[in-house]
Amino acid sequence: MGGPVKIVIAPDKFRGSLEADEVCAAMTAGVRLAFPEAEIVAVPLADGGEGTVAALTRQAGGNFVSTSVLDPLSRPIEAVYGISPDQKTAYIEMAAASGLGLLSADERNPLLTSSYGTGQLIADALERGVSSIILGLGGSATNDGGTGIAAALGFCFLDKNKNELAPNGGSLVLIHAIDQTNVHPKLAATQIAVACDVTNPLYGKTGAAYVYGPQKGATPRQVELLDEGLRHLAKVATATFGFDVSDQPGAGAAGGAGALWFLNATLEAGAEIVFHQTQLEDYIQQADLVITGEGKMDQQTLSGKLVMRVAELGARHHIPVAALCGTLDLSPREVADAGLCYAASIIDRPMSLETAQTEAFSLTKQATFHLVRLFFGGR
Amino acid sequence: MGGPVKIVIAPDKFRGSLEADEVCAAMTAGVRLAFPEAEIVAVPLADGGEGTVAALTRQAGGNFVSTSVLDPLSRPIEAVYGISPDQKTAYIEMAAASGLGLLSADERNPLLTSSYGTGQLIADALERGVSSIILGLGGSATNDGGTGIAAALGFCFLDKNKNELAPNGGSLVLIHAIDQTNVHPKLAATQIAVACDVTNPLYGKTGAAYVYGPQKGATPRQVELLDEGLRHLAKVATATFGFDVSDQPGAGAAGGAGALWFLNATLEAGAEIVFHQTQLEDYIQQADLVITGEGKMDQQTLSGKLVMRVAELGARHHIPVAALCGTLDLSPREVADAGLCYAASIIDRPMSLETAQTEAFSLTKQATFHLVRLFFGGR
Repeated sequence: MGGPVKIVIAPDKFRGSLEADEVCAAMTAGVRLAFPEAEIVAVPLADGGEGTVAALTRQAGGNFVSTSVLDPLSRPIEAVYGISPDQKTAYIEMAAASGLGLLSADERNPLLTSSYGTGQLIADALERGVSSIILGLGGSATNDGGTGIAAALGFCFLDKNKNELAPNGGSLVLIHAIDQTNVHPKLAATQIAVACDVTNPLYGKTGAAYVYGPQKGATPRQVELLDEGLRHLAKVATATFGFDVSDQPGAGAAGGAGALWFLNATLEAGAEIVFHQTQLEDYIQQADLVITGEGKMDQQTLSGKLVMRVAELGARHHIPVAALCGTLDLSPREVADAGLCYAASIIDRPMSLETAQTEAFSLTKQATFHLVRLFFGGR
Repeated sequence: MGGPVKIVIAPDKFRGSLEADEVCAAMTAGVRLAFPEAEIVAVPLADGGEGTVAALTRQAGGNFVSTSVLDPLSRPIEAVYGISPDQKTAYIEMAAASGLGLLSADERNPLLTSSYGTGQLIADALERGVSSIILGLGGSATNDGGTGIAAALGFCFLDKNKNELAPNGGSLVLIHAIDQTNVHPKLAATQIAVACDVTNPLYGKTGAAYVYGPQKGATPRQVELLDEGLRHLAKVATATFGFDVSDQPGAGAAGGAGALWFLNATLEAGAEIVFHQTQLEDYIQQADLVITGEGKMDQQTLSGKLVMRVAELGARHHIPVAALCGTLDLSPREVADAGLCYAASIIDRPMSLETAQTEAFSLTKQATFHLVRLFFGGR
């Protein structure tokens, strides 16, 4: 065989010891030790949740933008999002401006909170001329049906008396009309993909208010009010836009329905967006070997979205996929059936979990060294 | 690539958990799980010490022979040796008939003990018509210069008055002549290879009496007498046979000098004999992959005779050699410099040494499964 070996490194985090980008660094070091000339593409995996924006931005070689926006209770804060090197794509997550973590426990009240700040981040990105936005839901403090996001982008929510409403959970039941006169002119031409891993509808017992309201601070009575508000919003929005999204899986994610109505967005699994954004499949097609992994490989891995998805991509293009982990709790047959040509723990001797976590970087590096040398045999 | 994969399995024991043949069984099971059609040659490694006869006999597919002989204090016992399927080669170790383990602590006195029983085993093999004998030294209770072995094969040790002497350590100083009249007629035509891993000369401060006498029960005064006896034997034997072996490395092994003078034997490293007898190099030449291993791979491994020797044979014939172990205490560079294409612990999660030892068989099987699948990639 001629030319340098081509390796794609695409691990999840090793929970408890290494973040995904640290696993990438350790594996890269291990490959380099064996094959200094190797062509390596390292893609830290993320599932759309916290850390995804950071991973996507770094992976793209992009920059982080900090801008002043309003937090869920309309107080000014600095929030950060990412932008690709060509300034064409923004990576935004709701947790940055509208996250539950921005409020103290007694401030949590989804009748009062608004996703307005997230809309401001989107508006900021539109001003910079992006043509696409990746929006990560999850971790929000809001149950406003995405009206806050919409308001920051120029949608105006009016009551019966044509007075403008504050875009929060409590206002939902009062919405009589949605004025689109001042909607941001660049919104329509911007592709927005929403990373969303839940399948709840907008309202009802499995809807946003009942399922997510309590963890955002809503009392049982407030949950009822919020659910009533979302149901009311659905009626008005359906009349306004001419289509209903209430029953679409994911409409019940914070901002989900709003993204579909107001942003004309698509909802996709977080992992799919990450895989697409990072061009992982393209890289895998050109590789000799793919190395993935996660902290613990067990039954959850087999039903999971990251390592299994990497294995599937490898199988699709007939590229071998090997996996490293801290704990391997799968039988040989399960590993083989998962489409992995190899799975091993990085542990190199009897040791405690604590020691394994402390030494995880060098153990991962060493295990990768041995893995690639064995795979490439005599090269 | 066509045809089944060809794999040589040649591990040392995993000390504390698996004997070498158990490691072979676990590795074989792991390969079979991945490649049911694989052509596997499994060679449990041994270094010439205890267990070598059993390993060589089993490896050859031979039988064990039990015969009545005299123990070191001339009491009748049953002792066992091995014989190859073609009845051409006998595998004998001194410990069987002349071992220290056959005596209680207060019976140990190398002035009185004799290697006669080992000579009887050799005579029994000669009667069966073998053309070669592998003789493992080590573990003996004797310091008789091999005169016991010789006496059982017909050599007669005479004092000044031409009286026959008992062939033991105490008689050495009295030997005046060696009568070869009744030497076994088949001895001269039989090749005898002695497995010997020590380099001591026959006598002097680094000789057999001073170095090994005390552990065989000799007092300081007895050590002096034994050393004087060996020195005297050297004089008589050199005059009788026309050559001196006293300074040859290994002459000081129990039976070493005697084997050289009386049996016209060659002394070889135990591992070399095992490698030669098992035709390991021939098998390796025809293999796609060699798997070796031992319980703990560390600096001792690098200066050791078994795993390193397997690595050397692989390198000589450009066949990749991979290693599994319980504990891997070598750096990636050290593993690579040792000529191994892979080294990994069988451990699959953080665990105690005790758990690792208890689960060693299945851990070895699973690690082997992953190893061979990765190595053979897409096959």
